[in-house]
Amino acid sequence: MSNQTYDANNIFGKILRGEIPSHRVYEDDDTLAFMDVMPQSPGHLLVIPKAPSRNVLDADPAVLSKLMPVVQRLAKVAKEAFDADGVTIMQFNEAPAGQTVFHLHFHIVPRYEGVALRPHSGQMEDNEVLAAHARKLIEALAEQVQAT
Amino acid sequence: MSNQTYDANNIFGKILRGEIPSHRVYEDDDTLAFMDVMPQSPGHLLVIPKAPSRNVLDADPAVLSKLMPVVQRLAKVAKEAFDADGVTIMQFNEAPAGQTVFHLHFHIVPRYEGVALRPHSGQMEDNEVLAAHARKLIEALAEQVQAT
Repeated sequence: MSNQTYDANNIFGKILRGEIPSHRVYEDDDTLAFMDVMPQSPGHLLVIPKAPSRNVLDADPAVLSKLMPVVQRLAKVAKEAFDADGVTIMQFNEAPAGQTVFHLHFHIVPRYEGVALRPHSGQMEDNEVLAAHARKLIEALAEQVQAT
Repeated sequence: MSNQTYDANNIFGKILRGEIPSHRVYEDDDTLAFMDVMPQSPGHLLVIPKAPSRNVLDADPAVLSKLMPVVQRLAKVAKEAFDADGVTIMQFNEAPAGQTVFHLHFHIVPRYEGVALRPHSGQMEDNEVLAAHARKLIEALAEQVQAT
């Protein structure tokens, strides 16, 4: 269906291998979550599988099945940590659909009543702000674990 | 996390129970897919679990794990059937995030190079157009099954 292939040299591949820095929020054997450096709303994070795939079009269905409960958990945590009124989940397949990095990823974007989604502007968020937002999510995750 | 509860009287609940018509594309024991009546692009369809949940915030993780491979399959089929260049997948949680019907659903939207996503205008698509688009998807699904 997709005639495109996975290129391990993409930015998220490099983040997975620790070759470039990221503000990590969550990691398990199959999954990594980190802050989007061009957030469309404070707390905008990305969830990716460690397994290589370009997007949903070429992903192993089993990888998606494993990924989704983590997306869910982080969506709930993001809503709580950022005191949001809602959460938008987006996943783009190929450039005409909005995909800019070609490693499968889900966007989790906290949303607020009456506040439109900021466009993906290409404006990098301040590093300290991203670090603070990552800490907020990590703390909310830890509280969630303690509560269960 | 979500302080909102599921109300079975929502439009998708009614569609599930066959109380109101829809242009159905796919159905299995756990899942239903049908055309969005206000498509943001031709072929815009919705995938919902039969299990009642308001959105991702209150869903059973097992329901999401089962749903996602179907979302994937239909995303691939929609891209093919509508000869699209990409596919945008969106899932909205609560009204400030864009949710208008409070039964968990994933949007699958075929996308084209240089064509912006149409806003969710509130403009109903012609019934015959929706029926033709549903047939297109059903045929592409049948071809996919024959090919495997």
